[in-house]
Amino acid sequence: MPITYMEGGVCTPRGFKAAGVHCGIRKNKDKRDLALIAADRECAAAAVYTRNLVKGAPLGVTKDNLQNGLARAVICNSGNANTCNADGAEKARMMCGIAAEVLDIDPADVIVASTGVIGQILPIEPIASAKEALKAALSAGGGDDAAEAILTTDTVKKQGAVQFELDGKICHMGAMVKGSGMIHPNMATMLCFVTTDAAVSPAALQSALRAAVDATFNMVSIDGDTSTNDMVSILASGASGNTELQPDSAGLALFTEALTGLLRELARKVAADGEGATHLIECHVTGGASEAAARTVAKSIVCSSLTKAAIFGADANWGRVLCAIGYSGARVDVAKVDVAFRSVKGTVRVCKDGAGIPFDEDIAKTILLEKEVCIDVELHSGQAEATAWGCDLTYDYVKINGDYRT
Amino acid sequence: MPITYMEGGVCTPRGFKAAGVHCGIRKNKDKRDLALIAADRECAAAAVYTRNLVKGAPLGVTKDNLQNGLARAVICNSGNANTCNADGAEKARMMCGIAAEVLDIDPADVIVASTGVIGQILPIEPIASAKEALKAALSAGGGDDAAEAILTTDTVKKQGAVQFELDGKICHMGAMVKGSGMIHPNMATMLCFVTTDAAVSPAALQSALRAAVDATFNMVSIDGDTSTNDMVSILASGASGNTELQPDSAGLALFTEALTGLLRELARKVAADGEGATHLIECHVTGGASEAAARTVAKSIVCSSLTKAAIFGADANWGRVLCAIGYSGARVDVAKVDVAFRSVKGTVRVCKDGAGIPFDEDIAKTILLEKEVCIDVELHSGQAEATAWGCDLTYDYVKINGDYRT
Repeated sequence: MPITYMEGGVCTPRGFKAAGVHCGIRKNKDKRDLALIAADRECAAAAVYTRNLVKGAPLGVTKDNLQNGLARAVICNSGNANTCNADGAEKARMMCGIAAEVLDIDPADVIVASTGVIGQILPIEPIASAKEALKAALSAGGGDDAAEAILTTDTVKKQGAVQFELDGKICHMGAMVKGSGMIHPNMATMLCFVTTDAAVSPAALQSALRAAVDATFNMVSIDGDTSTNDMVSILASGASGNTELQPDSAGLALFTEALTGLLRELARKVAADGEGATHLIECHVTGGASEAAARTVAKSIVCSSLTKAAIFGADANWGRVLCAIGYSGARVDVAKVDVAFRSVKGTVRVCKDGAGIPFDEDIAKTILLEKEVCIDVELHSGQAEATAWGCDLTYDYVKINGDYRT
Repeated sequence: MPITYMEGGVCTPRGFKAAGVHCGIRKNKDKRDLALIAADRECAAAAVYTRNLVKGAPLGVTKDNLQNGLARAVICNSGNANTCNADGAEKARMMCGIAAEVLDIDPADVIVASTGVIGQILPIEPIASAKEALKAALSAGGGDDAAEAILTTDTVKKQGAVQFELDGKICHMGAMVKGSGMIHPNMATMLCFVTTDAAVSPAALQSALRAAVDATFNMVSIDGDTSTNDMVSILASGASGNTELQPDSAGLALFTEALTGLLRELARKVAADGEGATHLIECHVTGGASEAAARTVAKSIVCSSLTKAAIFGADANWGRVLCAIGYSGARVDVAKVDVAFRSVKGTVRVCKDGAGIPFDEDIAKTILLEKEVCIDVELHSGQAEATAWGCDLTYDYVKINGDYRT
């Protein structure tokens, strides 16, 4: 059976339930702001966290709780990041306690996360008063509501699922993610929760997650701002009945591939739904001397404000792409670089050997007016490849962030 | 005599003339697009250049011409960067030849620069046909026109001058700069030309320039994009009659201080006139464990898209400042950080020991509505200080860069 990507989310794997409710951290009653994911058994668990030195309080509590490599639930609120507050850790532990009470489990088996404004005290009362609502809402059909409850300025829910086979057993994996702003992940992205019914040991799970995140979320940038609350977590319940994967298992490569593919789709969704975005920008770099160089170049291009603004204007201003390659920090022979713009409307080559070549501006415009635009860069210095994802810089990004707190 | 900053420009020092004319690289006939600065004698000369691996062709030609530490003139066009073109070096040398012909000097004594679109062939005909116009316009009163001719999306001319004394001789220094977009200098900024009538050896001049640029232009960011054409050059004619400063001269500190102060004023002007800017943002970091750490933190803050957008909206969203400190890469104890916002309307403290403190949002708004806003950060980790300058992120930045080439 091949790896098959499908509609779904955190409840696609067997034995997972979820809920998303409005508890009152957000003023808008139509916006769910509290999510819960629960497994019907103890799961192997792993997570990766932001590398920002300022870390949201929930991350420290989650790290403590995952020291034994086990967890059973996730609780996450939106509307308040619970970061840079003197009582942050206390409040995060109270959230674990609330989830534990709802599910009748140990608070140390809870992954906790928060997203929203930094530096405002998190009111615990709305969360505490939502216990009954969470209990009532928790179901195998609750993945959609949970995926909605973690969103901030995101405009769409972002979920996905994948099916694969390990020693004859059908396994599933599902995930939900939020993104939109303050997105320049360094280790993880702003809150992605993955579930699977495959049996995977905590160590194997951690290594698979790290590899998958490096190639997916860590290659996304919306605005260059690495959040304080980035976290990707995964729960593996083992309900599929496969032999538990260990770090040296042959099956771990397939599991990692399935996970990477799932997170890649979600990374694309995060980029496409960047704050104010009208274009998804994919940058595909080939011919790199090393994977690190290819990744650095790809990410530098999707981070360039000028390149992002040019794509907003559907302007084939490739000089800005060269400029971003030049300041990326990667060692590149700039006299060998080729650049092309590509979309479903076709491909236009604009630069060869580091210098401009004549091209049809009308064709370029037609290509760049598409919602998904790819910048192809060939470095002619080796065999390494990398892909990064970003979005255009628009009036709406400025508007959204000019008064985010109000 | 104290160091005295004054109105003026590249013609303020004795023995310098300048011209700015419209030659036709730009379509708009009302926009001057070709500048010339000429000294009446051979000058010691120094320059610093972009660290972008993609370098504008004029930079390489200038570097060649400055190998002997001597020069007599500067020629600079706007409207075309002469970068990423196969014939770039050839065209840059032709520009030196044209200046040399106008001034009857050696082409190897000319500093050449270009600014504008990357990757379009520079037409040499308009420049060649401007010889008579340059000759006619060249005068000690031509500094203003020259300062205008180097601008791209800048909205105002940016010039300054300073007077100081070296062994009893009154010396002058003047400068003009362009900035606006693709401004995140790493070694220099996009084109600043300094003149002085002080006598300074080429080696002493280079060391003074490097120190001054590191503390001024290298602490400015408009949009995080390090240009391919950044260059700051200085010509020292010695007309003041002071004993020539050497790298170990006692007077070099004073000269460096005067230069640093002059470039600081121009750096502020570049930041205030960033593309689309409505606010100048100054970030003053104190208590750093090292100067490098203080500089890294200050620059990270002025580079944060989210902080820039918040200042545009006059929103005291200090969590974004903490976030930018955390991902800056500097080693900081984030639990010790204090933050305040300041302007001529007063100061509002918003964060102490890495956590929020109550503040009056109306007062904060009044402070942040001023055109010049300062973010004060105390790291409580040492004695080092640094200042960085930037501007807010606005709708107009996006508008300007959505269709820059048209």
